[in-house]
Amino acid sequence: MKQIYFDAIAGTPIYPEVWREMEPFIKNEFGNPQSLHSFGEGPRAAIEKARERIAKLIGANKEEIYFTSSGSEANNFAIKGLAFAYQNKGKHIILSSIEHQSILNSAKFLEKLGFKFSYVPVDKYGIVDPDDVRKFINKETILVSVMLANSEIGTIQPIEEIARICHERDVLFHTDAVGGIGYLPIDVSKLGVDSMSLSATQMYGPKGVGALYLRKGTRIIPLIHGGIQEEGKRAGTENVAGIVGFGKAAELALEKMEDRNKKLIRLRDKIIAEFPQKVENVYLTGHPKKRLPYHSSFCVEYIEGEAMLLSLNMKGIAASSGSACTSRTLKASHVLLAMGYSHALAQGSIVFSFIEDNKEEEIDYLLEVFPPIIKRLREMSPLYNKQITKEDR
Amino acid sequence: MKQIYFDAIAGTPIYPEVWREMEPFIKNEFGNPQSLHSFGEGPRAAIEKARERIAKLIGANKEEIYFTSSGSEANNFAIKGLAFAYQNKGKHIILSSIEHQSILNSAKFLEKLGFKFSYVPVDKYGIVDPDDVRKFINKETILVSVMLANSEIGTIQPIEEIARICHERDVLFHTDAVGGIGYLPIDVSKLGVDSMSLSATQMYGPKGVGALYLRKGTRIIPLIHGGIQEEGKRAGTENVAGIVGFGKAAELALEKMEDRNKKLIRLRDKIIAEFPQKVENVYLTGHPKKRLPYHSSFCVEYIEGEAMLLSLNMKGIAASSGSACTSRTLKASHVLLAMGYSHALAQGSIVFSFIEDNKEEEIDYLLEVFPPIIKRLREMSPLYNKQITKEDR
Repeated sequence: MKQIYFDAIAGTPIYPEVWREMEPFIKNEFGNPQSLHSFGEGPRAAIEKARERIAKLIGANKEEIYFTSSGSEANNFAIKGLAFAYQNKGKHIILSSIEHQSILNSAKFLEKLGFKFSYVPVDKYGIVDPDDVRKFINKETILVSVMLANSEIGTIQPIEEIARICHERDVLFHTDAVGGIGYLPIDVSKLGVDSMSLSATQMYGPKGVGALYLRKGTRIIPLIHGGIQEEGKRAGTENVAGIVGFGKAAELALEKMEDRNKKLIRLRDKIIAEFPQKVENVYLTGHPKKRLPYHSSFCVEYIEGEAMLLSLNMKGIAASSGSACTSRTLKASHVLLAMGYSHALAQGSIVFSFIEDNKEEEIDYLLEVFPPIIKRLREMSPLYNKQITKEDR
Repeated sequence: MKQIYFDAIAGTPIYPEVWREMEPFIKNEFGNPQSLHSFGEGPRAAIEKARERIAKLIGANKEEIYFTSSGSEANNFAIKGLAFAYQNKGKHIILSSIEHQSILNSAKFLEKLGFKFSYVPVDKYGIVDPDDVRKFINKETILVSVMLANSEIGTIQPIEEIARICHERDVLFHTDAVGGIGYLPIDVSKLGVDSMSLSATQMYGPKGVGALYLRKGTRIIPLIHGGIQEEGKRAGTENVAGIVGFGKAAELALEKMEDRNKKLIRLRDKIIAEFPQKVENVYLTGHPKKRLPYHSSFCVEYIEGEAMLLSLNMKGIAASSGSACTSRTLKASHVLLAMGYSHALAQGSIVFSFIEDNKEEEIDYLLEVFPPIIKRLREMSPLYNKQITKEDR
């Protein structure tokens, strides 16, 4: 059976150019980058080259890039690290209600230590109104975090405006850019962010590596205390091969971004146009235009996401119902609930996110096999049989 | 020029069997282990196989192994995570004075949050007296951390006795086993530890992966909050290839341990016997027998470690003066100071730690080129010229 991969948000393939650059640092160059002898030189230089490439992708200086093991670690580092570093100024932090679990659960942890959180709502497209952020800022506010683009609904936020409002009030602004990095042109100076989380996983790089951009002069308390790595801000022997791969993926992303996006947008717009036409009671989630180039997401009424995923998998199609970080919890997405979807509808979430090798024919195949699956699942659904109407939405 | 590597504590080469098992997960198997479709199956199974192999190496159950990105992360996870989880019981924690920076700096962080720390002294060999631990335990004590073996001096601690004392008093016991894992036979039940940090870096595995053993039933607060990975205890997309490599390295360590150690001990004992004979005012640091099989460490009076390392490097020999995590700070080692060495002597620290490919001839070469280096450096040393005597020790 042919295998079709529509789950870029859970991770993309890795470019051969990327693993080829990683290979020497897996097999031969085993020196510790911190060593004072020549075995450390190659690894150390390779890390600095990667740092430069990633900085270039986002318009930063290389000294502003700190490597981590994932986007989740970068988010924990930013939220906790900035909270601890600036707590003497205040203990109030503002988050969008659709942040990633690594931000939301960091907040729950910090709440127990006396920090206060406010959650900015989103509209039906999942968009934060910058004016709402302004209203939530008070004298105690030290930090605002709104993600660049949500990987469950694809929606891109008005980051630049939100950052400007934060800075008018002397409040730090963090954005989780994991879903957008490598796809959206990002210039940290133009965006005006103080910190930003990145990951290689969704941009044709390796797993196990991420980074935090931290604007020069911004203080932070380490998440991983210890040695002198990453200027003393993130301890632990460096994942040299992973970092090298991330760097190469960043370089390639910059080269390929425009062409890759053109391809991906064609796939995205095809499914967005055709899928809801094929089956009744299917709704696009997130914004129709202000969304990630590789991302389409829908709610299929009367069915649970998991059942769809397993049925599609049996047809050789890989998709997801939301973030990989929550995929097995089988809870209704907090993102869709925040957008005003009912629990029932939120549970019918499905995300098709594309990699550059995907073909239009693969979407045609999906649109051929998926409607009968939906029909069959609906016939088994008590919800469907009760004929719950659209007013439930 | 031939290159000789005597710096196993900074990282070992990786076995070809290890990277060959990693390769498919770098190049092809890019699925997210949390995905509900078939692309996730291979990576998920591979992680569980690795977990089993690591559990087997230390006599644990696989459910007790949580992957991290490094030994430093595992130490942060344990110290902070257990402190937060058990703070209602008390806020006092006991550490040995020669713990790794990732433990000591986690302690400094926790001190600001109201935790109290006591530091158990060590004797001239760097050994903790279990009775001292007993004396330091009070009603508020929730946790004791003493490392299994110190990578700067090689000394192995009486972990079993310390763990027993802790449990008599209903106190948790953590050990940082990064230096010993893969070399010392470890059985967590026999040792009686509640948590233990591991890393692949020094045991012929890849960089960028570590693990925490956590005894079943022990509560912990995550260091990296977020998704459901690692049973919700450690978020972030898994470093699948790294984890696979760690697992294979663990399997091989178990197979090869005895033979490998025989070889390493021969090298270790050769240099310990011969080096102080070759040059005056050179002292073995750490215990002569109760030490890591691959580890020798010395203080060379009147010289700074860095100067020796750079000179040796010019002769093609890679060594270190202590932990890679502090190598570039050029401070006198806190470990040697805790053992009663003077600042001057502690700065003359040098560590030769062996990999299994090392040959006795390489030690002969070292013992040939090193004495003239020492002579030359001493001639340039103001300390030496002042003829500071051994009473300074």
